[in-house]
Amino acid sequence: LDYQHVQVPFEITLWIMLASLAKIGFHLYNKLPSVVPESCLLIFVGLIMGGIIYGLNDRSPPVMDSDIFFLYLLPPIVLDAGYFMPSRPFFENIGTILLYAVVGTIWNVFGIGFSLYGICQVKAFRLQDVSLLHNLLFGSLIAAVDPVAVLAVFEEIHVNEKLHILVFGESLLNDAVTVVLYKLFRSFCEMPTIKSVDVFAGVGKFFVVGLGGVLVGLSFGFTAAFTTRFTKDIRVIEPLFVFLYSYLSYLTAEMFHLSGIVAIISCAMGMKRYVEANISLKSHTTVKYFMKMWSSVSDTLIFIFLGVSTIGENHEWNWPYICFTVIFCLIWRALGVLVLTFFVNRFHVNTITSKDQFIIAYGGLRGAICFSLVFLLPDFHRKKLFIAATTVVILFTVFVQGMTIRPLVDLLAVKRERESAPTVGEQIHIRFLDHLLAGIEDISGHWGQYYWKDKLEYFNSKYLQKILLREYDQPKSSIVLLYEKLERKHAIELAQAGQLGHGLAHPSFLSSDRTVITEQKLEDTPNPDALDNMQEILARNLYRIRRTGPAYNRHTLPGDSEPSERAKEILILRHKSL
Amino acid sequence: LDYQHVQVPFEITLWIMLASLAKIGFHLYNKLPSVVPESCLLIFVGLIMGGIIYGLNDRSPPVMDSDIFFLYLLPPIVLDAGYFMPSRPFFENIGTILLYAVVGTIWNVFGIGFSLYGICQVKAFRLQDVSLLHNLLFGSLIAAVDPVAVLAVFEEIHVNEKLHILVFGESLLNDAVTVVLYKLFRSFCEMPTIKSVDVFAGVGKFFVVGLGGVLVGLSFGFTAAFTTRFTKDIRVIEPLFVFLYSYLSYLTAEMFHLSGIVAIISCAMGMKRYVEANISLKSHTTVKYFMKMWSSVSDTLIFIFLGVSTIGENHEWNWPYICFTVIFCLIWRALGVLVLTFFVNRFHVNTITSKDQFIIAYGGLRGAICFSLVFLLPDFHRKKLFIAATTVVILFTVFVQGMTIRPLVDLLAVKRERESAPTVGEQIHIRFLDHLLAGIEDISGHWGQYYWKDKLEYFNSKYLQKILLREYDQPKSSIVLLYEKLERKHAIELAQAGQLGHGLAHPSFLSSDRTVITEQKLEDTPNPDALDNMQEILARNLYRIRRTGPAYNRHTLPGDSEPSERAKEILILRHKSL
Repeated sequence: LDYQHVQVPFEITLWIMLASLAKIGFHLYNKLPSVVPESCLLIFVGLIMGGIIYGLNDRSPPVMDSDIFFLYLLPPIVLDAGYFMPSRPFFENIGTILLYAVVGTIWNVFGIGFSLYGICQVKAFRLQDVSLLHNLLFGSLIAAVDPVAVLAVFEEIHVNEKLHILVFGESLLNDAVTVVLYKLFRSFCEMPTIKSVDVFAGVGKFFVVGLGGVLVGLSFGFTAAFTTRFTKDIRVIEPLFVFLYSYLSYLTAEMFHLSGIVAIISCAMGMKRYVEANISLKSHTTVKYFMKMWSSVSDTLIFIFLGVSTIGENHEWNWPYICFTVIFCLIWRALGVLVLTFFVNRFHVNTITSKDQFIIAYGGLRGAICFSLVFLLPDFHRKKLFIAATTVVILFTVFVQGMTIRPLVDLLAVKRERESAPTVGEQIHIRFLDHLLAGIEDISGHWGQYYWKDKLEYFNSKYLQKILLREYDQPKSSIVLLYEKLERKHAIELAQAGQLGHGLAHPSFLSSDRTVITEQKLEDTPNPDALDNMQEILARNLYRIRRTGPAYNRHTLPGDSEPSERAKEILILRHKSL
Repeated sequence: LDYQHVQVPFEITLWIMLASLAKIGFHLYNKLPSVVPESCLLIFVGLIMGGIIYGLNDRSPPVMDSDIFFLYLLPPIVLDAGYFMPSRPFFENIGTILLYAVVGTIWNVFGIGFSLYGICQVKAFRLQDVSLLHNLLFGSLIAAVDPVAVLAVFEEIHVNEKLHILVFGESLLNDAVTVVLYKLFRSFCEMPTIKSVDVFAGVGKFFVVGLGGVLVGLSFGFTAAFTTRFTKDIRVIEPLFVFLYSYLSYLTAEMFHLSGIVAIISCAMGMKRYVEANISLKSHTTVKYFMKMWSSVSDTLIFIFLGVSTIGENHEWNWPYICFTVIFCLIWRALGVLVLTFFVNRFHVNTITSKDQFIIAYGGLRGAICFSLVFLLPDFHRKKLFIAATTVVILFTVFVQGMTIRPLVDLLAVKRERESAPTVGEQIHIRFLDHLLAGIEDISGHWGQYYWKDKLEYFNSKYLQKILLREYDQPKSSIVLLYEKLERKHAIELAQAGQLGHGLAHPSFLSSDRTVITEQKLEDTPNPDALDNMQEILARNLYRIRRTGPAYNRHTLPGDSEPSERAKEILILRHKSL
């Protein structure tokens, strides 16, 4: 037996296997996932596993390594989120999302930090050794809403698109703020004196970290799109480039201390459109499937590790500090959402209702990012207290808020996601209105979102597409692409229905009125030519269809139809009249 | 800048990126891959990169880590090979393959080992310090044909299926022999005295290593198939299980010192059939695509690393030893193939022609496995000589033999691969003949391959399918599955043709004779129901089709058809008689 030799890959494979099997297990009982969110169940599995390890070894189980989390587990989830981000609602609400993500997070950090510092001044609590800076540092890591936790819960409750994108977008974009504030306070903690220059430099860093991330992401995204122009002869490695370039964008951003999450999201959103046009259909299926698979496994592993890491002896319990942390997290988030939404609503026609505000505030879940950050703290005597408080906040938000949010959404009758995809008609109208609004904005001299969108679209079709797309000579409108997609989907459905032996319920081709034939032609057949042919046969043989043609036509001679057919028709007509 | 933090994933990603870009680069010039095999080009790129690294750093570039090769690069290639192995020709020629793989490899090991020892006795060559055991150890690592190199070359030259499976099957299955002999001689080298018991134990080990690998592989394969029974609700992680279980089988086999290659091949071949039936179509596309992608990247990386590792100062040059190694490798392989084929041909009706024998001998390429094994040798004073000899043999076989084998195949007019897949008719006949032969073998009391195949098939449908398949209640014959597959493929093609605006050239549905309709029904329509419907309409309305039905039927009343239709028919018939 030579276990040492294969240990690393063997244990990684086993952990992934455990995660996958746990996922299968939950889905075997259909009722379980509808009551308890998967994230709670996974943390629970992790707690049990941690307990077993603790019981067997009699020492704390290994905690989730922050490096493993940030380098290997987080990127797939964020990539998936960015790649499948619905770009229209995201860009429509980008202002509100940024306000929540930047101002809201700063508000939370300072709110929680200062009020906890207030608590620390109460002598009875024995917390006077926790300085203001340490409290602010703790605030900076505990304030940020976690995308992984939010995604896990919000994917199951199906609230309306706007509400979803507000919470989810905030959780993604606040990474830049968290990175800056966390690193700022951490370096302040280690500095002997803090100059006002440092504080101003910190403010400037926001823009560098955020915009730098966007820049890194977009440049890698466009490079990826450009690379897939040349993969026509080796389709099989196409999916690789999507993963490689987005991962490189994340790593590069992290290397330069920029926001990796912002970078990978920009990369995914930037490349998606061009890559999809360049790569083959099967490659695209593989990309989508693998992204979902990977993020789903990462997500599972994160929650299991979260559970495992909770067990152990690295906690210092202090009732007041921990309880007040939970309370302040809730209060400051609620206040922040209320105040910010008040300003947002003043400038928007589509206001955020008070129900939506409640769900936004209540959906501010904390997760593995906080957990990894708290373990990355430099060693100081109260680190274990911070770890305990963070663990409690995460478990509280994931378990209590995560499990009650679905009943609350039902109870409040929050507007749900629409069930069906928009029809082609709707899509054409939306597009038409966009153009109209862009024109109106241009005339009125107001440079709003429609104006910029129009300009961007122009720049895209004028320059970017020429560089990044392989078959540029045939630019297809998205309506044509949609039609192709529907046609393809339908063809596959038809084949599957045939193969399953059920068959689709087809109305008779020739029911009372003849319009059915035309409808059938549009809806049901994959090949228009074949149906044309068929209709021709029917038309040639069925006298009723012949009658729909004009009785007299300038350009056709009456002798075109065969005499025998005409005779037949006359005979039939005569028969009818009997 | 914090490079340390992201170094490991960043460098891995960059290497993979380099490999992928190199692959794209070669395919940009269409003429290049048709002249030079990709493997040669990749080694060449590796040599250049190694030269650059050597020039810049002024020290040897890092050699390919044997652990990385065996744990991460080799498994994807072997998995791909096993999963896409054409099982019929493989099992039809399993006897010949095993003969080549076991007896042939042993013949080569001892032939090369002893004759090199003979060379070492020549005083002028100054090699007298290389003992017989060391020569045999060297023989054991240099004798084995390399699956990666064989695959890279033979995939491009398209020889006939039997020839391909003989060379490729041998290269895969000789792993068990190589593992045993290599480890045996290595332990003999370290032992003070060798007892005859040890030699016999070594012989026994062959069976343990080979059959143990098969056993480990099959058990993981069946577990994988069983697991995919329960993934109906989470399709997205289905592909994962295929990869996880096969990788675990490889690692487990390596852990117990069994043949990992044999294990992963058994696992892939064992699970394929059941997994394909259980998982969704998209999951299956992802599995196939990702397997191909992964193996292609691994393959590229191996050849690049091979090139990089060649540059450096870890070689000891000795003209006679190196030249004779190359010559003996060629001679002993040619002799082995000749002798073994003589015996094989005596017991087979389908003999291996002398052209085929030449290609089998000439296609015995060496590759990265030898290279990794030679670096794994324990340190002794002539290790650098062995490294140099191995490098030369690999480069010689890959460059000289790899580049000339295609012209030789053309020159000798070796029977090529058939271009088209077998028709449904052929497949039915093959199956029918199989059953017939199984029956004949049973009657004659001869337990040949057909008898065992039939028994295995019986066992499979009686027990295995019930346990491993999700929807067992509808067991489908492979003809039905093939029909479904063709139907699906056709539906997609129809949709794509429709979308491209070309349309397929459809013959008229109702040309002179009516059989066309039936043919069309079989060939062209994705949904049989829709066509049934259509035919019904046609039958109802076209008097000619009506006439094909029986004029009188016991079970139907003549009143079944509507009076108006009957009248119409009579009228038409009357018209005809005019």
